[in-house]
Amino acid sequence: MAILFENVTAVLMDGGHTVLPHAFVAVEGHTITSVGTGRPSGEFERVIDGKGGILMPGLVNCHTHVPMTAMRGYGDGHHLQDWLNNFIFPVEAKWDDRAIRACADLGLMEMIASGTTCIADMYMRVGVIGQAVADAGISANLCCGGTFFGEAFSPAACSDCTAQEELVKAWHGYDGGRIRVDASLHAEYTSQPGLWEWTADFAKRNHLGMHVHISETMREHEECKERRGGLTPIQVMDKYGVWDVCSIAAHCVWTTPQDWAIMAEKGVTAVHNPASNLKLGSGVAPIPAMKKAGINVALGTDGVSSNNTTDMFEDMKLSAILQNGVLRDPMALSAWDVVEMATVNGARALGRDTGAVAVGREADLILLDSEAVNLIPCHDAANNIAYAAHGANVKLNMCRGKVIYENGTFLTIDAEKVKAEVREYALPLLFGK
Amino acid sequence: MAILFENVTAVLMDGGHTVLPHAFVAVEGHTITSVGTGRPSGEFERVIDGKGGILMPGLVNCHTHVPMTAMRGYGDGHHLQDWLNNFIFPVEAKWDDRAIRACADLGLMEMIASGTTCIADMYMRVGVIGQAVADAGISANLCCGGTFFGEAFSPAACSDCTAQEELVKAWHGYDGGRIRVDASLHAEYTSQPGLWEWTADFAKRNHLGMHVHISETMREHEECKERRGGLTPIQVMDKYGVWDVCSIAAHCVWTTPQDWAIMAEKGVTAVHNPASNLKLGSGVAPIPAMKKAGINVALGTDGVSSNNTTDMFEDMKLSAILQNGVLRDPMALSAWDVVEMATVNGARALGRDTGAVAVGREADLILLDSEAVNLIPCHDAANNIAYAAHGANVKLNMCRGKVIYENGTFLTIDAEKVKAEVREYALPLLFGK
Repeated sequence: MAILFENVTAVLMDGGHTVLPHAFVAVEGHTITSVGTGRPSGEFERVIDGKGGILMPGLVNCHTHVPMTAMRGYGDGHHLQDWLNNFIFPVEAKWDDRAIRACADLGLMEMIASGTTCIADMYMRVGVIGQAVADAGISANLCCGGTFFGEAFSPAACSDCTAQEELVKAWHGYDGGRIRVDASLHAEYTSQPGLWEWTADFAKRNHLGMHVHISETMREHEECKERRGGLTPIQVMDKYGVWDVCSIAAHCVWTTPQDWAIMAEKGVTAVHNPASNLKLGSGVAPIPAMKKAGINVALGTDGVSSNNTTDMFEDMKLSAILQNGVLRDPMALSAWDVVEMATVNGARALGRDTGAVAVGREADLILLDSEAVNLIPCHDAANNIAYAAHGANVKLNMCRGKVIYENGTFLTIDAEKVKAEVREYALPLLFGK
Repeated sequence: MAILFENVTAVLMDGGHTVLPHAFVAVEGHTITSVGTGRPSGEFERVIDGKGGILMPGLVNCHTHVPMTAMRGYGDGHHLQDWLNNFIFPVEAKWDDRAIRACADLGLMEMIASGTTCIADMYMRVGVIGQAVADAGISANLCCGGTFFGEAFSPAACSDCTAQEELVKAWHGYDGGRIRVDASLHAEYTSQPGLWEWTADFAKRNHLGMHVHISETMREHEECKERRGGLTPIQVMDKYGVWDVCSIAAHCVWTTPQDWAIMAEKGVTAVHNPASNLKLGSGVAPIPAMKKAGINVALGTDGVSSNNTTDMFEDMKLSAILQNGVLRDPMALSAWDVVEMATVNGARALGRDTGAVAVGREADLILLDSEAVNLIPCHDAANNIAYAAHGANVKLNMCRGKVIYENGTFLTIDAEKVKAEVREYALPLLFGK
């Protein structure tokens, strides 16, 4: 289907920081076929009048745990270990496939309504999440966060190894690569060298990316060094080849300049999760220093249980103002920097042709409401995106050329049915209410 | 007019942290007349079905510069003095009454749509802002931020003294106290002892509150100490009686324990503006320590030029997670703490009977959309308010018993006319475009 956007303020997210007013953007199939200020020739099955609103790349959320939407705010106000052991883990033990599906759908709805078109998700029962993503229409890199707590590692003794193999067979490459499977380690403190080695090899054999939690808390970082002869999580995993594929390291709050040298050399993306890191008391990741060290920095919301939303606009704004405030420099991170983190840098992190409004890229596009009172005036489009916009300003979400959300209506998800499933099945199962 | 809210989750903001599910709240005239879980007797001209959504006190934004909405994002990405001298001040020199009115209306629209029912505003041409507030229907404490840069102070030589006298005559006590005028000093660095003395006396003579910018930046704080024999802004103004009335001190980022002792003793409210303080690189105010010192802490968005929105939900969330992150304590400020800052504490700061759902209080109430996907599930109402909600979740805004905004429609402001005035008159005047 050929679709034309007209009368949009196109924020291209190219290197030149181009903003095209009164622009036209054409889409055919799942690809952007034309971008410019003149009306392209050709027939269009649909012409969408943007009324001057911002058309920008869909947001790439590089670290999520989508079904945790069920746990929005559950157990808040407790210290991390208490929160995990007495609130989160006991609930997670109760999941079944039906509940995971309902809560994944609910989470995807929140993401879609706030402008996300691509995610990197780590959770459990990932095959079910794959079906939810397939039906919703967004793109996703899915993984299961491999762990191993036993004494002697072998792939046969590690259920997560089997799960990852099966996941690749079921979902990797689905719909022309709309769904990909990443190899994954949950974290250093929940795994061990045998699993690292296996996972690195598994990724290489299957041409997968890699997704790992890294140095989220000071305790995690320091305890690793104690266990691993002074090596940090980045360093010790590097020794086992974990970073030899296209990799994302989530959090990186406590990473060091030595870690950054490895990350820059190996092309490991740091995924910044500012809301979650603040809320859990983990700290503030040194983003400007990491960027200066040559690292690709992308953005994530983390799970709703520690954010408590998946509105990437919030995390963009927070990324910028947090660094400014903590470094006491109003220019520490710019509006462009954080919009790049949420778009082009995210695309690079996941090895995907998205994140920019450019001919040949995937038609992952969102349109913001030009009449929203919080977006008037618009002195600078990137500025309004980074600091003034919020998810509810998204009028339209197009994933791979298909409009999946418009004016508050979900076109690929039965919103009422999902809410009913969550309320009548999943919440009673998980929380007994 | 008598109005009944039924089937609401009422968050009372009382000392007991009460949340009443399936509640009824009745309003008559401008006052709340009944709160409970049984349907009150009486006739109601309107019954509003909350469908289980949260009904809570309207938000009290204790530090704003409402017409600066015109400057949303203007000059972002420059250091503070450059930003003020080369972007903000030259634009402010061009204001006329018509432009101020249009931009005040636009600013009020954004506030109303995101759940604010009461503001404390400091700006210029305040008489015009008074008319905008009067017409919009919200409550406001207005002031003009007195400055004096001359050599020898006298009230006759200070145009802001005359302006404040006139403002009191024109607007103080309007509509049963819906509009009040505060005495005001812009800041220590823009005034001097003669004006402080006059302003303190002016406030006492007229039974006014006081509104002052205090220790926003380290430079301001330190330069004051150099000029004033080691005294901080709080301390030096205390010597001149500035804090002898109900006072709010905006920012307080660099205030000290000695300052806090004065503030606690004199009942000076600290108004926290976390987004603005971060964005401008001013720093992080030590809110938990100030609360522990016995200070009433309220919340403000500051002007849109340095935020760049007036969504108090954003600043609530930011207040909580910022302290948690910086202090590395996930319990540094709780959800309840920040909702209190935005409601009851703000009411106390401005000496108003608002900020709680209680019989006899002003009927300043907002209703959140129970079907908003980012508010499902709701394990804890205060938690969802503080961390998951955003301004666009506000379905209905009632000020003093009158519904002024409902389902996206402004009932006291002609939204299209205001947007046209801003676009066709104010922006060309101010920015030449």
